[in-house]
Amino acid sequence: MLKKIGRNTFEFDNMPSIISYSSTVGKKEGEGPLGGCFDVVEEDSHFGKETWEQAESEMLMETVEHAIKKAGLKTQDINCIFSGDLINQCLSTSYGLRSLDIPFLGIYGACSTMAEGLLLASCFAASSEGKYAAATSSHFSTAERQFRLPLSYGGQRTPSAQWTCTASGSVVVSSKGTAPFVRAVSVGKIVDLGITDANNMGAAMAPAAASTIKTYLEDTGYSPSDFDCIVTGDLGLVGSRLLLELMEKDNIDISKQHMDCGVMMFDIEAQDMHAGGSGCGCSASVLCGYFLPKIKSGEINNMIFAATGALISPAASQQGESIPSVSHLIHITHQ
Amino acid sequence: MLKKIGRNTFEFDNMPSIISYSSTVGKKEGEGPLGGCFDVVEEDSHFGKETWEQAESEMLMETVEHAIKKAGLKTQDINCIFSGDLINQCLSTSYGLRSLDIPFLGIYGACSTMAEGLLLASCFAASSEGKYAAATSSHFSTAERQFRLPLSYGGQRTPSAQWTCTASGSVVVSSKGTAPFVRAVSVGKIVDLGITDANNMGAAMAPAAASTIKTYLEDTGYSPSDFDCIVTGDLGLVGSRLLLELMEKDNIDISKQHMDCGVMMFDIEAQDMHAGGSGCGCSASVLCGYFLPKIKSGEINNMIFAATGALISPAASQQGESIPSVSHLIHITHQ
Repeated sequence: MLKKIGRNTFEFDNMPSIISYSSTVGKKEGEGPLGGCFDVVEEDSHFGKETWEQAESEMLMETVEHAIKKAGLKTQDINCIFSGDLINQCLSTSYGLRSLDIPFLGIYGACSTMAEGLLLASCFAASSEGKYAAATSSHFSTAERQFRLPLSYGGQRTPSAQWTCTASGSVVVSSKGTAPFVRAVSVGKIVDLGITDANNMGAAMAPAAASTIKTYLEDTGYSPSDFDCIVTGDLGLVGSRLLLELMEKDNIDISKQHMDCGVMMFDIEAQDMHAGGSGCGCSASVLCGYFLPKIKSGEINNMIFAATGALISPAASQQGESIPSVSHLIHITHQ
Repeated sequence: MLKKIGRNTFEFDNMPSIISYSSTVGKKEGEGPLGGCFDVVEEDSHFGKETWEQAESEMLMETVEHAIKKAGLKTQDINCIFSGDLINQCLSTSYGLRSLDIPFLGIYGACSTMAEGLLLASCFAASSEGKYAAATSSHFSTAERQFRLPLSYGGQRTPSAQWTCTASGSVVVSSKGTAPFVRAVSVGKIVDLGITDANNMGAAMAPAAASTIKTYLEDTGYSPSDFDCIVTGDLGLVGSRLLLELMEKDNIDISKQHMDCGVMMFDIEAQDMHAGGSGCGCSASVLCGYFLPKIKSGEINNMIFAATGALISPAASQQGESIPSVSHLIHITHQ
């Protein structure tokens, strides 16, 4: 059952278990400080395929298959998978998963997709016996040509620009199992403070993360010090600074606990990453590669995972629209 | 609680109630045989806005607000809304819902979106107290220029082509209430039989509908005669014929019960609609405008609503890919 402890916050009496997780990243992500954490670092950015879209689909499929295999399961043991990605019509997901024969519910939350998928998988596992998967991916080359410019134009990147990671993450959640457990989740609202610069998504997303984290602390009575870490997905350097400022305005200091997957993914100066990494696969792979093993071992006891998504659309940007954002929150615990 | 009665079929002990529903359509849809059923027929295809995308966002927002108002509720009473649409990055949803301040989980299932949203809202309402909304929309002019050609090109349509409806539907689902009730749901799998013609989506989607309906009948032991109607979303004339053939191959005759929202929406010959209507808003508005009132009154006792989505992507089509499809099923009942 889902115990509602706020308008949009659910706590689990029988905490679902994240029984398996898998991560895949590209070469550049593998050369970053977390390179040793990921299950697979693929040197070939085409993943053996002809087009970037086929490459991303292949990466997602392999990551999902790997997570299922690590759980000692087969694809037919999965009751449902929640998955989506950045590419129009969630192309990478539809084409990546079509051969796996797994009941499928498509989701769209831009870079918050992993949090949304894990939230839904956890709610289903808490309400019903079974095994539920979540997955997402992003690929630098599919995203650049869709959202910005074809790579061959050699466009200049602004200091606030983030680098869409070539990465994928997948989890399997079950009603029964061992740590990591999901203690609670909180569904975010769409927040839009009027940022119109498509090269400054961190600033667009920070208010959504602030809104969701504040709501969760209010709904539960937890304080930041109850967590070993409060992890955002892909705010990057610019958005992370803004998040701390926004929280401080409400007298909430998360500076000791805050970490951001987009900042962690790269050695930002040495790898010339401007504001850091982004993309659905960034927070998904850092969650699955870096954080979940530490929760499993008990090195981390309690964490908030609040992936953030900029619901940016080139068509809307061309019409002068600002960028709405959303952030969903998962409270993951060792005990 | 969700009682799992198959790999991907869930039955509800305490059936959630669809406490409210609302539908909006454009002028052409209003001139069709169902014109009198819809809450709003809007003559202005721009919905008072400057661009088609703004028009669709406005239509979706008004439809959601109307459904909430008809339930005697306010937007802040809604615990979460599940919504998505056809436009890249689910633009219409993000921009349409951003001012409503409702916790939001984005979904993507192409024309199956209403079934996916109602499925998720029902599962949440069955597992937790609260009010959950689902909504979707489509607009002829946003879809044509994104998926096919800008309208001003005056392109010719093939006989198998469907007409993307300008339409929107929204429901509010609660753990407590009166008929219509949701008795059970079934999550579809991605099915791809190799159709590559983007102007023949009915043929691409029929195998997904057949797969999901067959699975549901097998999981529950129901036969087609247990239902007053078995309703698909947007197969159109071509896809509907194929669905009956595919079911017949497995000795299941649904010809007496089958109805298709894409066929029902228009007077196909008189309105020159080729294979019929399509678009997320087609099955959503026909469900909310035509079917749910009949279930409420008891004129229909049991129905299957199996909206179908062609997960077609222009980028994938350009790469020679076939069209994967998915169909999710909702069993709606008067008692």
